[in-house]
Amino acid sequence: MNEIELIARLTGDLPTNASVVVGPGDDCAVLDVGMPDQHLLFKTDAVVEGVHFTPETDAVKVGRKALARGLSDVAAMGGIACSALITLGLSPARGAEWAEKVYTGLRSLALEYGVTVTGGETTRSPGHCFLSVSLIGHVERGRAVLRSGARPGDAIFVTGELGGSFAGKHLEFQPRLREARWLCDHFSLHSMIDLSDGLASDLRHVLQASSTGAELLTDAIPVSRAAKEATKNRADGNTPLTAALTDGEDYELLFSLAGSDAVAVMDGWKAEFPDVRLGCIGKMTADRHLMLRDKKGLQPLSRHGYVHLQ
Amino acid sequence: MNEIELIARLTGDLPTNASVVVGPGDDCAVLDVGMPDQHLLFKTDAVVEGVHFTPETDAVKVGRKALARGLSDVAAMGGIACSALITLGLSPARGAEWAEKVYTGLRSLALEYGVTVTGGETTRSPGHCFLSVSLIGHVERGRAVLRSGARPGDAIFVTGELGGSFAGKHLEFQPRLREARWLCDHFSLHSMIDLSDGLASDLRHVLQASSTGAELLTDAIPVSRAAKEATKNRADGNTPLTAALTDGEDYELLFSLAGSDAVAVMDGWKAEFPDVRLGCIGKMTADRHLMLRDKKGLQPLSRHGYVHLQ
Repeated sequence: MNEIELIARLTGDLPTNASVVVGPGDDCAVLDVGMPDQHLLFKTDAVVEGVHFTPETDAVKVGRKALARGLSDVAAMGGIACSALITLGLSPARGAEWAEKVYTGLRSLALEYGVTVTGGETTRSPGHCFLSVSLIGHVERGRAVLRSGARPGDAIFVTGELGGSFAGKHLEFQPRLREARWLCDHFSLHSMIDLSDGLASDLRHVLQASSTGAELLTDAIPVSRAAKEATKNRADGNTPLTAALTDGEDYELLFSLAGSDAVAVMDGWKAEFPDVRLGCIGKMTADRHLMLRDKKGLQPLSRHGYVHLQ
Repeated sequence: MNEIELIARLTGDLPTNASVVVGPGDDCAVLDVGMPDQHLLFKTDAVVEGVHFTPETDAVKVGRKALARGLSDVAAMGGIACSALITLGLSPARGAEWAEKVYTGLRSLALEYGVTVTGGETTRSPGHCFLSVSLIGHVERGRAVLRSGARPGDAIFVTGELGGSFAGKHLEFQPRLREARWLCDHFSLHSMIDLSDGLASDLRHVLQASSTGAELLTDAIPVSRAAKEATKNRADGNTPLTAALTDGEDYELLFSLAGSDAVAVMDGWKAEFPDVRLGCIGKMTADRHLMLRDKKGLQPLSRHGYVHLQ
C-alpha cells in the first residue's frame, strides 16, 4: 500500500458535519466557521529529517521549507494565509541553536507573506527531528479552487519550470500565493493543485477528482535547467522530460480554466509576473486517460510521479 | 535550557498583527478571523513514540490520546472544539494496520465530542512514530479564559484527582470540555489551565502570567489512588502528595474565580457532575510566591512539576 492508498483508507470514514465544505482530499480543508463572507482554510504539513531534509541541511532552510509547503497549499486553493502554529520535534543530537535557526527561517518567510505565528511547541524526539506546521487561511465563500472542478476542453497551465528540485529549489522555492490570488481575481479557474508529488502524479489527482482525462504536449512541458543537469549522467534512462514529469517537490501551481480564457491569462500573466514562466501544457479531455502528445503521436503517460512511502 | 526556556526564546519575537488576540503562551492561540460573535481557537499538539507513548502502547489509545490532549487545551480556554487535522509519522516498523488503529482511536473520540476530522497526512519517519494533531475551536468574543486573569483572593479549584497518571490515565482521560463550558456558562472564571506538566509546574505558569502568588492547602490536594500506588515502593522519597503535585499528564482543569463564588461553584458542580471530583485547593495571593500550608505552617513549594527536555 502506498501513501495515497493508505490515506484513502484512513480518511474514508472520518467524522464530518455541515460545517465541512471540503474535507480530506484537497490541498486544504475548507470550513464554514461563521465568517460572513469567507470560508476558513485549514492545513497541516510536516517535514521529517531523513525524508524531507538531511542532517546536513541548513536549519534556516528547514524552517523556511516547512512553512513554504503549507503556504503553497493555501495558494493552491486561491486563498490568503493568516496564521501558523509550529510543532518542533528535537532529536538528542539537536539543541537550542538548531531550533533557533529553524525559527529564523520560519519567521522570515512568515513576515514576507504577512502570516502570524501564534504558537510554538517543542517536544523531544528520540529518533529524527521533525517539524509540523499548521496553517489557517481564508478564501471568499464559494471561491476556493478545488481539484474537482476541471472540465473537458479546459486549458491546463503550470507555473515555473519543473524537475530537479532536489538540487536546491525544494529548500528555496517561493510559494505562489501572490500569483494564485492574481489568477483568481482576474479569471475563473476551474481547478488547481500545487505540485508536490510530480506533475504526472498530481495531475492524476485532478483528473480523478474531476472525472476527466488530459492530453499534455511534450514540447510544452517547462523542463528546468536543474532537471537537465540532474539527468545528464544518469544510468536509469531518465530524460529531462521524465524528470519534469515525475520529480517531486516542484511547488508550482497546476491549474485549468476555459480554453477561451487561455490567451488572456497568458497575456495578463506576462505583464504581471514577467519573471515567472507560465506555460500552457495541454488540455482536459472527456475520456479519462492521461495522454502525452509528441512528434510520434499520442501515447499514454505511464510514468507516475514520485509516490511517498513506496 | 529546558523546554519552557527554549519555547520562551523561540516564541519571543514572532510575527503578529491585530488579528492575534492571544498569541503564544496560553493553552490555545485566540484569533479574530471575522466571526461576528466568536473568536477562533487554534492549537497544535504532538505525541512521540518513546516520549508520550511506548512501542507497546495500544495504537487505538495513542490516537485517542493525541486528540484528547488538544481537546483538553480547548477546554482550558472555555471553548468548543470544531475540527482536527492529523499528521502521522510512520516508522519503518509500523504499517497500515497500526495507522488504522490510531485512526480508530481518533475517530471514536472525535465523534464523542462532535469534532470533525477534515484531513490526514502520513509521512515516513525514519526514527520513531509521531502523531501531531491540529485543532480549531471557537469561544465567544472576550470570553476565552486565560492564564493571565487570576487575582489575589481568588479561590483555586482543580477537577478530578492528581498524580500517577502514567499508570494508565494518560491514555484514557476524558478531556474536560463539558465541565469547562458549564463552568464558563455559570460563573466568571478568572483563569484556567489544563494540567499537563503537573500541578506545581502548571500553577506556576498561571502565577507568572497573572503576576500573583498562591497558597495551597496540603490536605485539600486531591491525591489519586494511582499516586498512592505509584509511590508505595519508591526509594526516591516521593510521597503520594509530591506525586499529586508534580506528576505530569493529569489533564485536569485548574481554575480560579472570586472567593465569593466558591461555595456556589461547589454546590452547582456536585449537582451537575456528581461523578467528577472538584476540589478547592487554595487561594491566589498578592505576593508572588507559591506556598504550601500544612499542619506545621506555611512553606515554599520548591518541587517543580515535570519539565520536558530536562
